[in-house]
Amino acid sequence: MRADGRKWDEGRKVTVTTGFTKFAEGSVLIRCGDTVVLCNASVEDKTPPHVKPGWGWVTAEYSMLPRANRERSRRDVDKLKLSSRSAEIQRLIGRSLRAAVDREALGERTITIDCDVLQGDGGTRTASVTGGFIALALAVGKLRQQGLLERNPIIHYVAGISAGIVDDRAMLDLQYSEDSRAQVDLNCVMNERGEIIELQGTGEGRGFTVAEQQTLLQLCAKGNADLIAMEKEILGDII
Amino acid sequence: MRADGRKWDEGRKVTVTTGFTKFAEGSVLIRCGDTVVLCNASVEDKTPPHVKPGWGWVTAEYSMLPRANRERSRRDVDKLKLSSRSAEIQRLIGRSLRAAVDREALGERTITIDCDVLQGDGGTRTASVTGGFIALALAVGKLRQQGLLERNPIIHYVAGISAGIVDDRAMLDLQYSEDSRAQVDLNCVMNERGEIIELQGTGEGRGFTVAEQQTLLQLCAKGNADLIAMEKEILGDII
Amino acid sequence: MRADGRKWDEGRKVTVTTGFTKFAEGSVLIRCGDTVVLCNASVEDKTPPHVKPGWGWVTAEYSMLPRANRERSRRDVDKLKLSSRSAEIQRLIGRSLRAAVDREALGERTITIDCDVLQGDGGTRTASVTGGFIALALAVGKLRQQGLLERNPIIHYVAGISAGIVDDRAMLDLQYSEDSRAQVDLNCVMNERGEIIELQGTGEGRGFTVAEQQTLLQLCAKGNADLIAMEKEILGDII
Amino acid sequence: MRADGRKWDEGRKVTVTTGFTKFAEGSVLIRCGDTVVLCNASVEDKTPPHVKPGWGWVTAEYSMLPRANRERSRRDVDKLKLSSRSAEIQRLIGRSLRAAVDREALGERTITIDCDVLQGDGGTRTASVTGGFIALALAVGKLRQQGLLERNPIIHYVAGISAGIVDDRAMLDLQYSEDSRAQVDLNCVMNERGEIIELQGTGEGRGFTVAEQQTLLQLCAKGNADLIAMEKEILGDII
Amino acid sequence: MRADGRKWDEGRKVTVTTGFTKFAEGSVLIRCGDTVVLCNASVEDKTPPHVKPGWGWVTAEYSMLPRANRERSRRDVDKLKLSSRSAEIQRLIGRSLRAAVDREALGERTITIDCDVLQGDGGTRTASVTGGFIALALAVGKLRQQGLLERNPIIHYVAGISAGIVDDRAMLDLQYSEDSRAQVDLNCVMNERGEIIELQGTGEGRGFTVAEQQTLLQLCAKGNADLIAMEKEILGDII
Amino acid sequence: MRADGRKWDEGRKVTVTTGFTKFAEGSVLIRCGDTVVLCNASVEDKTPPHVKPGWGWVTAEYSMLPRANRERSRRDVDKLKLSSRSAEIQRLIGRSLRAAVDREALGERTITIDCDVLQGDGGTRTASVTGGFIALALAVGKLRQQGLLERNPIIHYVAGISAGIVDDRAMLDLQYSEDSRAQVDLNCVMNERGEIIELQGTGEGRGFTVAEQQTLLQLCAKGNADLIAMEKEILGDII
Repeated sequence: MRADGRKWDEGRKVTVTTGFTKFAEGSVLIRCGDTVVLCNASVEDKTPPHVKPGWGWVTAEYSMLPRANRERSRRDVDKLKLSSRSAEIQRLIGRSLRAAVDREALGERTITIDCDVLQGDGGTRTASVTGGFIALALAVGKLRQQGLLERNPIIHYVAGISAGIVDDRAMLDLQYSEDSRAQVDLNCVMNERGEIIELQGTGEGRGFTVAEQQTLLQLCAKGNADLIAMEKEILGDII
Repeated sequence: MRADGRKWDEGRKVTVTTGFTKFAEGSVLIRCGDTVVLCNASVEDKTPPHVKPGWGWVTAEYSMLPRANRERSRRDVDKLKLSSRSAEIQRLIGRSLRAAVDREALGERTITIDCDVLQGDGGTRTASVTGGFIALALAVGKLRQQGLLERNPIIHYVAGISAGIVDDRAMLDLQYSEDSRAQVDLNCVMNERGEIIELQGTGEGRGFTVAEQQTLLQLCAKGNADLIAMEKEILGDII
Repeated sequence: MRADGRKWDEGRKVTVTTGFTKFAEGSVLIRCGDTVVLCNASVEDKTPPHVKPGWGWVTAEYSMLPRANRERSRRDVDKLKLSSRSAEIQRLIGRSLRAAVDREALGERTITIDCDVLQGDGGTRTASVTGGFIALALAVGKLRQQGLLERNPIIHYVAGISAGIVDDRAMLDLQYSEDSRAQVDLNCVMNERGEIIELQGTGEGRGFTVAEQQTLLQLCAKGNADLIAMEKEILGDII
Repeated sequence: MRADGRKWDEGRKVTVTTGFTKFAEGSVLIRCGDTVVLCNASVEDKTPPHVKPGWGWVTAEYSMLPRANRERSRRDVDKLKLSSRSAEIQRLIGRSLRAAVDREALGERTITIDCDVLQGDGGTRTASVTGGFIALALAVGKLRQQGLLERNPIIHYVAGISAGIVDDRAMLDLQYSEDSRAQVDLNCVMNERGEIIELQGTGEGRGFTVAEQQTLLQLCAKGNADLIAMEKEILGDII
Repeated sequence: MRADGRKWDEGRKVTVTTGFTKFAEGSVLIRCGDTVVLCNASVEDKTPPHVKPGWGWVTAEYSMLPRANRERSRRDVDKLKLSSRSAEIQRLIGRSLRAAVDREALGERTITIDCDVLQGDGGTRTASVTGGFIALALAVGKLRQQGLLERNPIIHYVAGISAGIVDDRAMLDLQYSEDSRAQVDLNCVMNERGEIIELQGTGEGRGFTVAEQQTLLQLCAKGNADLIAMEKEILGDII
Repeated sequence: MRADGRKWDEGRKVTVTTGFTKFAEGSVLIRCGDTVVLCNASVEDKTPPHVKPGWGWVTAEYSMLPRANRERSRRDVDKLKLSSRSAEIQRLIGRSLRAAVDREALGERTITIDCDVLQGDGGTRTASVTGGFIALALAVGKLRQQGLLERNPIIHYVAGISAGIVDDRAMLDLQYSEDSRAQVDLNCVMNERGEIIELQGTGEGRGFTVAEQQTLLQLCAKGNADLIAMEKEILGDII
């Protein structure tokens, strides 16, 4: 049994508050156990220079509040540098969410998903993907309500979760106390068909076999299926 | 009557959630109408070089989340610059909270108050002072519970509120729709004796007379007295 | 009596050298006691994006030379950061000077007032407002001489001075030796009608009562009236 | 058949020049097809603060020369920002190379692997891992020759390669012309036992199934086995 | 005799590899003894704002790889500052190469010469000028081959070399072991007529007489003549 | 005859105000024609890490106030970059002033010379050297008066001046209207023996012959001799 009484293949309890802030086109506060992320989607009617004219763009920014963790960390602006970890994570979130969208159908718009971690207890990047997807869908829903889109640009549900090996035991959705001593950590973003969008695995302290990798992937598949079911419930009327 | 039905001398409804995040030594989510600020107090056992040995330090950082407002703004780290507005505000908060503390009694510790605006609807700097004071007091209370302090370093209650002149009419605690067309804006931080700690007044579009300044100050005195009564209720057992 | 023999309500001797540098449209070296600030006004035929088309803009930048003070300080560019204190001060100067101007009458131009402190002995921000106003008026005068303005955009005289409480005694225009041990410090910018444009008061070490605040304000009113009389003499032919 | 005549499961020709520069403790110029990376390992007798006293640290920095690619890109220092892509990649390289080392056996030393891409034609990050490992091993070999290490801190051979799906066809070691239109891209770092150290997979344009992921992993396993055979040949006398 | 057996007026052996990288319009790896610099010329069809419309621009960037030297140095981007030494050097290279070009004949194009020092053993700035000139000429040659230029914009051959006084003895082309204890160091860029383009002399530890300066200049003239002869051989068919 | 009536070999009128500011250990306002530079020398009792223990260090910083020139330029801190031109110049000033000092005799102290250009009309870098030397000598004089130095660390007088070729005519000490169309520009720093400390020559638009270089050098020698005579008069009692 795990520290919080969960089974090996059991994800943490997830709760989603939509409309947590009132200005963002899509606003979601997602709690996965003690991890809390505020995901706000903002729509702008322009795109960066590298985007094909007439097409849209989806991007993400990720940051931790200074006291989201056990120790206070200095703000990025104080160091004049985006932390490398944040850079890595926000690229993952951005790629994951773009996979959910038909950018031609979105039209010449940028949707930026700001993922600000209010409290971190492991799994902040995958919580950001799941929460960020819901915020994105809400923002797109608002554009559709306003009659600004001919067809629905949301083409996939997307969710993310991690699995890992702790004390040589595979388990789903590591919390911090597990994560900090994990031997292997695998983050996986999937769509509603169970197809992989993003996969990031790291052996910390030891390598892992192809068989172990498959076990972890199956755990993630189960966890992501549950998350996508939840997304469908929340977004039922909207997408 | 005002847009939200308040009287001229009536502050917005304020609610305070203590313990909003679980790692900070003091954590407060303060809502003043639609303004929402997360104030986290962090204790560290060292002080900056300019502080007298054996004495403590209290400082504040202030930031708005990118989509706290009607328009999304770029992150400071993206511009590699702390916004001048944030710099001005966090200096005000820091000075205000230091006035609440006997730094010798605090001992060689730094308490940093992070004020992150989740939603901004006017009055974010004064809400940060009020919420930041409660977070500071909670953190100090924890130090006292742990028996780390000989005497209570909190020597004053401190709260902040604004008043302004809109359409040539003085009113307390401007919300954004009032603030954005105010002719005069006065922010005032006071202690439990009604003494002024910080005063910042600006004529926007026109100057204001000494008499008008006095009227605004009286409104703030009333508002701050109510806020300090609320602080006493929340902190009763702690300070 | 004060260290330099001044009376409690007496400001320091102020001297103004116009045309101190020859390229700026308005150039002023202002000396308030031992505080020396070079204020240069530069006119450009464009405005920042947030300004209404056809209207003008007035802004200020403030900086201290590295050895303006008793100790040498590192340059901002060396730290890659505008000092927070400078940010706070230049926002005050900018707001103060915009209050002097009818921006519609100025037309689509930006006037930037660079206030560089060559020597600092207390009161640099208010000396910058006073000297900056004269530089601004000189630059506007040059535009008018060139027939580029239909009507005079200078609608107010503006000056700034501080007052404070030292050893429980209120006094006008603190020099550094007084300022560094002041209990209360109040900066006030006023126009020729005695109306307040900017007010910034800080209790350092203790709060101050509403009555004390009024006393300090009266001192500032007296000091600013003298400064504006001096401005009128200097600018007589120009505005 | 592929554009350059390779078979689907065939990696590009790899050549390694050791001692390419003469000052670095380990210096490798690795060419994988038209991708050319200079990997220099530098040893310093100190470690960052987060490292356990007495233990060592291995870290990597990755950068592209401005004209490594078809278009010239601005230098990071010109933008005052490490590119997010470089940040992501250098974290991957660092984690991969740390997995090769017993940091206790390394002792209180930092080995920094600088991976500078002189020419980029796809697969620069995995070429950096492979070349960086050889540079690391050469630097460790030099420490051992000098009698500074009690036992060999190199505990694994490590190599990296990518596989991808292009036109719905899985293939090993994508060059740029394939990479730029790949539907799926999987980077994999493995050790000499065929265990996974790092895994990064991305669906670009579409998701990929668990079965596809396994196919790509098998391709990488084959490619990495060949690279590790090459490493053993080069390093035979040293490790 | 000198450490490496050279005569006092003998330059180091220089080898030039053209086409070292394949994407740059002009690519040169220049080796002057143990100094190795990669010089890549990139052509872009636009110019900076300060350039006369219709005219071209030539500029240079200079950087050392972190482990080009005996000690590893931090990357500029890590310090968020271009090193002052690099700034000084790239201005010298840029001025030198602009002297080789009729910018009107070049047309509205920018040619950027990136000089990245792979290994530094003294004389990197002058090696960058010589190698950079060849890269520039190759890039211009490619434009001419494509029929994009009416007349040849290369109007001069340009090369650079240093001379110095070590142990009171004048000598040509100092290597690091000489350079690091030189009393006088003179860098000189010349054209094919023996005219001076750039001259930078520094007394390190002592001043130098006008006569000594002339001796050093004559040594440089000899060295540059040899370098320009080499350039003519390499570029014979191209310019 | 020249625009301002000077002869070809005649320098501009130079005036030096010592003690221009009161806090710096040495403070000089130097005017060379319309060029005005404030040179402040600050003494600190510590040295940078690269300096031999027990020895001293002399360094310089150079900056132009935003409106020192005909056009306003943005502050370096606003661009988050020291301008490359300033970097180049402050390295020249620092090397020049170190040549005046026996750093062992100075003891473990750093003297920083801040050269801030209040008005620029050509020749700011050489005016900074001349003014900076006087400020340095004044600061050293103060240390000697305080009995802190066993022997005089000033071992040379140092001054700087430029000469150039305008309309194929050599002339001394170019002012801006000459400098901006000069074909050749030579800056030269010398000591009281007429030895060269720093030499920087640039052909702008054309190369220059060795003979021309000698002519310019002789002009500079004459100009520097006059400047050093002036320095001796000012510093007579001090050094």
